[in-house]
Amino acid sequence: MERFINEPEAFAREYLEGLEQAHSEVVELRRDPLIVLRRDRSKKKVALVSGGGSGHEPLHAGFVGEGMLDVAVPGEVFTSPTPIQIQVALREADRGDGVLVIVKNYAGDIMNFEMSVEMAAADGIALRSVAVDDDFASGESDQGRRGVAGTMLVEKICGAAAERGDDLDAVAELAHRVAAGCRSVGVALSPCTPPALGGKSVFQLAPGEIELGIGIHGERGHHRSLWKPTDVLVAEMCELLFSEASYVRTTRDWDRVSSTWEDRERTTSPLDAGTNVLLMVNGMGGTPNSELYVVYRSFRKLCEARDLKIRRTLVGSYVTSLEMRGCSLTVLPVDDELCTLLDAPARTADYVHGR
Amino acid sequence: MERFINEPEAFAREYLEGLEQAHSEVVELRRDPLIVLRRDRSKKKVALVSGGGSGHEPLHAGFVGEGMLDVAVPGEVFTSPTPIQIQVALREADRGDGVLVIVKNYAGDIMNFEMSVEMAAADGIALRSVAVDDDFASGESDQGRRGVAGTMLVEKICGAAAERGDDLDAVAELAHRVAAGCRSVGVALSPCTPPALGGKSVFQLAPGEIELGIGIHGERGHHRSLWKPTDVLVAEMCELLFSEASYVRTTRDWDRVSSTWEDRERTTSPLDAGTNVLLMVNGMGGTPNSELYVVYRSFRKLCEARDLKIRRTLVGSYVTSLEMRGCSLTVLPVDDELCTLLDAPARTADYVHGR
Repeated sequence: MERFINEPEAFAREYLEGLEQAHSEVVELRRDPLIVLRRDRSKKKVALVSGGGSGHEPLHAGFVGEGMLDVAVPGEVFTSPTPIQIQVALREADRGDGVLVIVKNYAGDIMNFEMSVEMAAADGIALRSVAVDDDFASGESDQGRRGVAGTMLVEKICGAAAERGDDLDAVAELAHRVAAGCRSVGVALSPCTPPALGGKSVFQLAPGEIELGIGIHGERGHHRSLWKPTDVLVAEMCELLFSEASYVRTTRDWDRVSSTWEDRERTTSPLDAGTNVLLMVNGMGGTPNSELYVVYRSFRKLCEARDLKIRRTLVGSYVTSLEMRGCSLTVLPVDDELCTLLDAPARTADYVHGR
Repeated sequence: MERFINEPEAFAREYLEGLEQAHSEVVELRRDPLIVLRRDRSKKKVALVSGGGSGHEPLHAGFVGEGMLDVAVPGEVFTSPTPIQIQVALREADRGDGVLVIVKNYAGDIMNFEMSVEMAAADGIALRSVAVDDDFASGESDQGRRGVAGTMLVEKICGAAAERGDDLDAVAELAHRVAAGCRSVGVALSPCTPPALGGKSVFQLAPGEIELGIGIHGERGHHRSLWKPTDVLVAEMCELLFSEASYVRTTRDWDRVSSTWEDRERTTSPLDAGTNVLLMVNGMGGTPNSELYVVYRSFRKLCEARDLKIRRTLVGSYVTSLEMRGCSLTVLPVDDELCTLLDAPARTADYVHGR
């Protein structure tokens, strides 16, 4: 597949070099190991670290900056960062007030981040962690649901809380609350092709075929169908999105007091009529801005028909899957507190918000 | 081609409905005729109106708001808006301080905007106009060069000038200066498919083939070649971009004093070593954010090798061509004054900038 690239092996690094050069007032790139830091780390506050495989840009490096992340840890495309990278990131991030670690729920990421959290805690860094698992279309498995677009919302909301001075436990509790509340469903109109696979796409779609419930690494979705008008397609996605009245699962969270992993139960509550919500339409990388708004129009109509109260909206390409044409829908119940944090300023390379 | 759409004929309208619903605090949509207005039009200032065919989003409707446009006039996909639409837009925009009309240099747009400007002027509205023709890869013809990504820079810079209170002639002179200074070159890795063409793309590329110097409506480019690494491709684009030492052409500008069209000569000056510049890498709609930064890295290196002084940078998808995979490079010479205007706040649906 034709793309803007030099050597496949250099793709992630060259992207980051371009990002740093374009936004040198916001971010700083460290090599060996590769991490992206917020340029101004003078403020004493809880630090936010996130990371994972590349290929989902602007997540995570594009969200480093005031009001969001302090350090991003980029792996190769669709590949977890190494424990060494993560450990250096945690050490660099900590300003003495502790670090919140935001991980998308994938086996490799969880394993490497858990290992690194344990080692950093042994070095005396106060840590809490949250796994984001908002993909309502991903089947149940030992690993649980996947983390997708909701990750950006955790980064935005918790970034704002840390910036205003909330302490580590408060920011971590907020992260769990947002992660528990988020539900997302994606759809692919085309697959994507990791640079290193020699032009082989992660799956095949016949002409006219689309796949509902797709993941951001080309993971198999819920089902395939023929293309359909967006109003019909979004209604089908919303059936998955609203299918479960309430969803309970167990996640692990690093307890900084006992220095151990604690199981915690997480409940996604039903979306009753009258619930205040944020709606997010997220492009998968190759979807034009205009089409995302057409999707939003359908999505909003269906949410209003369920009597959800739309308090905030995000439409854009935030958590992508290389050049995939597709999008995801996310609903997050919000209250005044979450709205205040969503409205707070963010100054990152690829997300600027507020006054 | 699969895309997020209901009926092809409804695409532009449904996009605008979604945009208004998602950003109702910023924009207001009027139907019959279709125009997009800045929600808050209370401030007395020079108004900015721009428009053209849809399919280039976020241009223009996504740039309506504080610090950029007051009214956008959207045609159907790749089709000029009608004179009636434009006349209503000019009337709605004017707050008594006059209107700057920003037009991309295409025969249909120029014809309809010129007609509307004459009629609005007869109604007593003070008007000035600027045609943007920054596409250095488009061949010479009676119509001159095409307007592409530089249009966004004219809207940003002149929007900031109007917001701080510059008068109509000052804003118009600035518009001509920016339009004269901009030079752009695009490349397509894939074609695009207007919804109304029944799945027919605007041109065909064989696998592995790319086209340099492409326009934003699929106009033929400068030449085709096989795919090449981005460093090599960008060097080839820069040859076109820097090819002319200086470029002189004639554009028409509405003179509000004499109420006639005046020819004016416009000169794009050579980019001598030491020139202060803004660099822009613009995605064509289907290009992932990560790849744009890989392009920026190559572009920046070549500009630095020519001893251009990079003062400002924009990387993103601003002036697109539906779902085309591709990008364009733009250079604009800047001074402190232009940097101040570029740094000024913008609060639109799809471009937020500054404090």
